[in-house]
Formats: sequence, structure tokens, C-alpha cells
Amino acid sequence: MPDPFVAIGGDAAGLSAASKCLRTDPDRDVIVLEKGSWVSYAHCGTPYFVKGEVEHLTDLLSLSPAEAAERGIDLRRDHEVVAVDTDARTVTVERDGETIEQPYGDLLVATGARAVSAPIEGSSLDGVFTLHGLDHAAAIRSYLTPPDEFAVADLGGGDALDEAVAERYGAMHPPETVAIVGAGYVGVEMAEAFAAWDLDVHLFQRSERPVPGFGDAVGDAVTEHLRESGVTLHFGEEVDRLDGDAGHVDRVVPASGAELPVDAALVGIGIRPNTDLLVGTPVELGESGAVATDEYGRTSAERVYAAGDVAEMHHTVTGEPTWNPLGLPANRAGRAIGSTVGGDPTPVGRVAGTAMVKAFDLECGRTGLIDHDRAREAGFDPVSETVTAGSRSGYYPGAAETTVTLTADRDTGRLLGGSIVGADRAAVRIDTVATALGGELTVAELERQDLGYAPPFSPVWDPVLVAAKVLNGTLE
Amino acid sequence: MPDPFVAIGGDAAGLSAASKCLRTDPDRDVIVLEKGSWVSYAHCGTPYFVKGEVEHLTDLLSLSPAEAAERGIDLRRDHEVVAVDTDARTVTVERDGETIEQPYGDLLVATGARAVSAPIEGSSLDGVFTLHGLDHAAAIRSYLTPPDEFAVADLGGGDALDEAVAERYGAMHPPETVAIVGAGYVGVEMAEAFAAWDLDVHLFQRSERPVPGFGDAVGDAVTEHLRESGVTLHFGEEVDRLDGDAGHVDRVVPASGAELPVDAALVGIGIRPNTDLLVGTPVELGESGAVATDEYGRTSAERVYAAGDVAEMHHTVTGEPTWNPLGLPANRAGRAIGSTVGGDPTPVGRVAGTAMVKAFDLECGRTGLIDHDRAREAGFDPVSETVTAGSRSGYYPGAAETTVTLTADRDTGRLLGGSIVGADRAAVRIDTVATALGGELTVAELERQDLGYAPPFSPVWDPVLVAAKVLNGTLE
Repeated sequence: MPDPFVAIGGDAAGLSAASKCLRTDPDRDVIVLEKGSWVSYAHCGTPYFVKGEVEHLTDLLSLSPAEAAERGIDLRRDHEVVAVDTDARTVTVERDGETIEQPYGDLLVATGARAVSAPIEGSSLDGVFTLHGLDHAAAIRSYLTPPDEFAVADLGGGDALDEAVAERYGAMHPPETVAIVGAGYVGVEMAEAFAAWDLDVHLFQRSERPVPGFGDAVGDAVTEHLRESGVTLHFGEEVDRLDGDAGHVDRVVPASGAELPVDAALVGIGIRPNTDLLVGTPVELGESGAVATDEYGRTSAERVYAAGDVAEMHHTVTGEPTWNPLGLPANRAGRAIGSTVGGDPTPVGRVAGTAMVKAFDLECGRTGLIDHDRAREAGFDPVSETVTAGSRSGYYPGAAETTVTLTADRDTGRLLGGSIVGADRAAVRIDTVATALGGELTVAELERQDLGYAPPFSPVWDPVLVAAKVLNGTLE
Repeated sequence: MPDPFVAIGGDAAGLSAASKCLRTDPDRDVIVLEKGSWVSYAHCGTPYFVKGEVEHLTDLLSLSPAEAAERGIDLRRDHEVVAVDTDARTVTVERDGETIEQPYGDLLVATGARAVSAPIEGSSLDGVFTLHGLDHAAAIRSYLTPPDEFAVADLGGGDALDEAVAERYGAMHPPETVAIVGAGYVGVEMAEAFAAWDLDVHLFQRSERPVPGFGDAVGDAVTEHLRESGVTLHFGEEVDRLDGDAGHVDRVVPASGAELPVDAALVGIGIRPNTDLLVGTPVELGESGAVATDEYGRTSAERVYAAGDVAEMHHTVTGEPTWNPLGLPANRAGRAIGSTVGGDPTPVGRVAGTAMVKAFDLECGRTGLIDHDRAREAGFDPVSETVTAGSRSGYYPGAAETTVTLTADRDTGRLLGGSIVGADRAAVRIDTVATALGGELTVAELERQDLGYAPPFSPVWDPVLVAAKVLNGTLE
């Protein structure tokens, strides 16, 4: 039997790889080392657990430890890898103070990312959260729940929950005012979650618009909708620090402007790849700071792969390395690496940065290159057009305004990216644009795509086609 | 000034061409000859007018005669073209018994299609309809409306409505039982419309499943849903004739089986291109019986174009001529021909036969080649897989089963077509498959497309990706 396939990290990439490797080569020894207690949880579902739409923490697990065992995966929770030796092909694992040297035949680094709170001071105060991990989510919902209604069992955390923290927040008087620092995905989704608990929600964002990766048109629509939904917006305002007495946050201090008294704060200003483990190893990082990989997910070290939030992939449009820590690429790359180490070499595919986010009743999507500076850096001459069109035939009830931005290269007409926002089936339409990027279509070709039409679902010219028509007219 | 651009037919293709020609060349003389009173109406919206969700007939008009005039189009309603002379470059027009010879510089044949009722006898009885044209739609809704609630003005027909027919049906006792002959789009949409009026609805279909163009998996799902929705299904049953006393339909006579007493019948068994006008001209028809065209919509006669339901186009997958009488290709081809005759040559694009239909609460979509016999005729070795997956993350409320079938060529792995059915954002997902066809992707490439993911809209692996994974596994 060859040395085992070892994955560091028991989340999307690690467990997808482990599962697929065993389906490809059922005799392979497959070990997953997870430093925490939780495995394979849906990070993107945590705002909906806080909101209460998802009842139990365990609902967010896509693979339980028992299911992993059934698949033949040797899943070891609470096992932290503290060193990697690519010459000896071993990893050093700590568990309950014990240290073990674990040999590997193939190694997958799937250590994920962590939420950053720097440079915001005061993030370690009680009542300040980052929503990275299920224990954070559990703490927030415990805090939101009135003490006389709180029961730790209602969180449905199974054996992995840090009950002490949940109990401590469950005993506190619920917050009435919350500040969210950062209006990216997490910030916007959490605004909806907090509003559902009737909190007075304040959303801070350094730039002038929320969800900046989705472009200006989406940002404007989300801004208006957040305001209509009762969220107080502090855009263009940098948060300097969070302050508090007796160890609990009680105010937000913006770099300029008046202090805001709050009972809780959520910091969602970004994540960074967990690469500390690789310092001193020959595994090279890319310019983004995440692990550089090739089209099979291989790193610069022999038989060492990387996937998920810790790794770079190659961009659909530019072909260049990019860091896009999102759910599908993590699963896809993990699965492909599992095939490859199982004996069936499979490319991990490229990433277009396709993303969707729900902001109260608005659906948003984005894909590819939409920022003109980034497009220019990649050697393109970007041109964009934004249109607003109906989501259904105008005469059919429920038609909603849908705003689409498309960006193309002036010289070649090649489609570079796009975004969409609207209240009726808007988000899934971004997949049309993402697939057009994958097919390397020009805008003229996109305009001629034979999309579907039925009055209840789409007008004759889908909003994406309307945008293509207009952009194509500009390019001519 | 050159001889005018003349379009025969004032619907999607004819008016799109006229409008675009004038935008491209504002000095061009543009004449549209329409034999009826209605122009530019949304045929696909008529079931929803009958249902009552669309209030007025005029809501279904995408361009009013006044708006056409504003655009500079010389729109002549009630002008029937009875002959085309491609040598003299004239058309013969009849209007109120008068005959005019109209010269053309460029001619567009956009005469559309007509509903067929043959070989079903009895289709001319009162109470039998085909739903082709707004006067039919008006007659049906008038009939459904109780006489004491009926007012012809409520139909909102403007000056084009045949009021006498509407008044006559409006005075009748409303039907209680209706037979729909043919369970294609129109049949299924009309079942929903009649059910909304609380009729006892019987749906007859010669084959074993409804919406046969959507494949077996969609047909099975729609069958179950129609039954749950209270429609009585007579599938695998051929209707021989409709019978009646005193000129009004009162029973359906199937080829085998018991007669069914009914008060009304709707025949939706297909349409045929209106090509009679071209008999004896050098304008050639294709194998389908529709007008053969090239990639610019040109026919075999010089300066004669054809577009819309009367014309063939070329298939996205096979490149061969195909007849796909649907709304978007008609608009797109008309628009392209308008550009071309205006001086900016523009291809009409290909058609994949992409279609969507709503069946009560189910959304259905289809695109490309999904019938194995047709795929084999086109030289492929088709392989299909069908999967059922969730429309959202499993833990998110509202996730609905979504069934996707994908078909590919065994040798090359090229995607040939697909279908989808489900209750949550299913139909628009077919556009992902249609765009993959347009980009000539293989199933392996489709599997690696970077589609969006957010728990409220799509699971990590969109149902289309799940189907691609499974089909790709079969192909390997």
C-alpha cells in the first residue's frame, strides 16, 4: 500500500478530495487532519442560522464525521498540523499535547482562510464577532435570544459545539443596536439576519458602496434597498476602533465623526489564507499571498497540492493566478485533486469569481472582470454598459427591474465580465454570463445566444441579452 | 431614394426588421404590410390573457400602430399581399377589394405560421378554438365570462378587436367542461388558464407524455403535476373528431374509447408556416416546409429575406437548417435583417430550440438536441443522464427538487442539449445549458464552469453541474 493521501483541513476542499480519492481508488489510505471540532460545514449558510431560517447548526454540515467514516475516510478531528516536511514527506500533528509524525504519499493543503479584524482595535471585546466558524455563529444567535428563551440544545450543535461560550452569551441581555463593520457579502447578509431580530442595524463601509466586488450598479441598487429595509448606512466612513467598558463593546468609533453607542458588533472586513504552516517549506505562495498552484492544483513542492480558500487558481478570463476564496471552486478543486491522486488526472478548472449574494429581497450576481483597473492590468481595454430591463414580459404580473452591467474588451469584443441585480430570478442569470466567459464568447456572440423565453420567467430579450445588445452597439 | 424595404407581416420579425432598418438608415423608405388588424402582439402571452392575469388585449402589444408611425414605419394594416414577383420586384396587395402593385428594393417575408386543426374534424364548430391570434383569445375569454359580467370593453381590444365575435361568445352560458386537444406548450398553458376559471379540464395527447419536445423526464414531472392540479389526463389517446348539435361542440370523440361530453374545446396540435404566397416564386422552401434561409436570413431569391415563424434557421449544434418557430429567434432574425438591409450586414444567429414553459407551478426548459433519434440523424452517438438535485442549499427553506437531463456525444463528449424541470428558478437555468451549447462546450468543460453559489438561490453544485458531473462520469 502506498503512503497515505493526507489532507490538512476537514472542510469543503479537504473532504471533497478525500471522498473522490476513495471513489477513484478504494484501496487508498486517506487521512483528513482537522484542527477543530467542526468538519464540512457550509460557511455560506451561517447568516441564515443566525437569522433563524436554518434551525440547527448540524443542518449546515454537508458530511458528518460518521458519514466520512462510512466513506472510508480516516477523519481525525482536533488534530492540528504544526509543521510540514516536504523532504521527509511527513507532517507533524499535535493532539492533546501529544506530537505525532504522519507520513504522506500525497499531501493536500486545505487549511482555509481566517477572518481578519485588523486594523480595527477592540475586536477582542465581548459582543464583537467575525462570523468565521460555527462557534461564532452559535455565540451570536445565543446573544440574540432572550435569556428566558435560550436553551443551548436549541442550537443543535451536536458534540462539536463550544457550549460554554454559547451559554455565556445566552445569559446576556440581547443587544438592541448592532454595528456591522464591512458591507461585503457577510456584512450585507448579516444586516438581514440582525434586522430579522428587530435590531437597530448600522452598516459601516470604508468605500462609498456596499458589495464593492459587484460593481457600482449593483452597489447603488443594494444601497437603496438596504435603506428601504431600515438599515442605517455609514458608507464612506472608516471605523477606527471598537470601545467598551468592563470588557464588553459599547461604542463604535469612526475615524471621523461621532461615536455610535452599540451593544454588539460584527466585523466582516475580509479574510486571509491560512498559510503560516508553510513558512520555511518549499511550497511557494503567489502574489495574492495564497498558495500558488497549477492546473491540477499542484504546488511547487512535489506531491503537495493545495485547494480551497488557502490556494490560488487560474482566472477564466486572464488565465493568470487569482485568489477567489469561494465555495464551488473549493469543492471542485478538492474533487479534481482527489481524482488525480487516486490515479485519474483531472484539471481543477478555472475561476471567474462568480458570486451571488442575497441582500434582503434583492438578488445580486457577478462574474469575471468588471473592475476597469483590473481589466487594464490584465491587458484589456475595458468598455462597460449598464441596462435596466424587465425580468418577465412587461404585461406579466411580477416583472421586476433587473439591472445588468457587462464589460468587454474594445479591440476584440471579448466578454470580460458582468454583474446583475434584481428581485426576480436575477442571481441565477449570472450563470449565463459565467458560461459565456467559459466559452470565451464575444459580446456579439452573446447577443446571438438562443436563450429561453416564456412570459412568466423571461421577456423575449432576457436582460442579459439586452445588455449585450447595448454594449455591442457601443463597441461597433 | 432606393426602392423601399417592404416587410410582409406586422409581427415580431416584420416590425423588428422595420424598426432596426430605420435606426440603421433613417432615410430608408420602410413599409410593413399586415393582412390583419393586429400588429406586434405577444402570442406567448395569450394564455395569460385568457386566464385573466393579463387584463387587456392591448397589454399584449409590444408596438402600437401609433408607435410604429413615430418610428417612421409606413405600417399598413388590413393590406393582404396576394402575390410576389421576384423578377419585377413587386408585391401585389389587396385592400378593400382594391389591388395595388407595390415595388420593393428589399423584401422580407414574415408571414408567420397558422394553427393547424387537421386532421381533427369538427374544428369549425362553435366553442372550438385554436388560440392563434388575439381574436381567438378574446372569444375564449368572452365565453368564459358569465353573460351578466361580460362587457366587450373589458377586453381592452382597442380598434383592432373583432367585437361581433366577442359579443356573441359573451352572451353564451359559460362552459363547464373543456377538452384540450394537444398537450404541447399551448395545451399545458391553457389547462392552467381554464383551471383558473374552475372548469373541468380534460387534456388529450396522442403520445404518452405532455410537452414531448422537452423529453421524458420533464414529461413525467409535468404529468404528475397536472394530475395533482386537477386536470384529467387522456394521454396516449388520439382525438378523432369533435361533434356537436346545432353547430356548437358538445362532445369529443376519441379514436378509441368513450365519448366525452364537453362545452368547449381548444385544439393545439401544432402550427405550419404560411408559405402559400411563395408558390410559383423562386423562393425555395427547406425540408421542414418553411422558407430556406442563409446566415443573413436571405432566401434563394435575390433581395428576398425571410424571418420568424415562416422561415428556417440554422441549428446551434448541427449547423443544419431547422424550423423553430419561437419568439426570440423571430425578433433576433428580424432585427439582424433590418441591420443588413439598412447597410450593416449582421448574421441572424443560430437556434438551439431553447424554450421554456410554465405548467401550473412547474417551470420547464429545454435546449438543443435531446431526442436520441434526431441526434443520431445528425451524426452523433447520444448519451443522456438525468439527475434530480436541489435548487438551493438543502438547509435553506424553499429548496425544490430540480430534474436535469443532459445529452452528449459519446465520442467527443460534446454537449448536445438538455432539459430541466422544477418549481424554483428552474426554467432560467436552461440558459446556462443554451450558452454552453453556443460555446460548443464538452460536458467535461460544462462540469468545470464557475457558476454562482449562494444558499438562497443555488447549492454549491448547481443542478446543471450535478447533471454534468454524472454524465461526464458515464462518458469516461
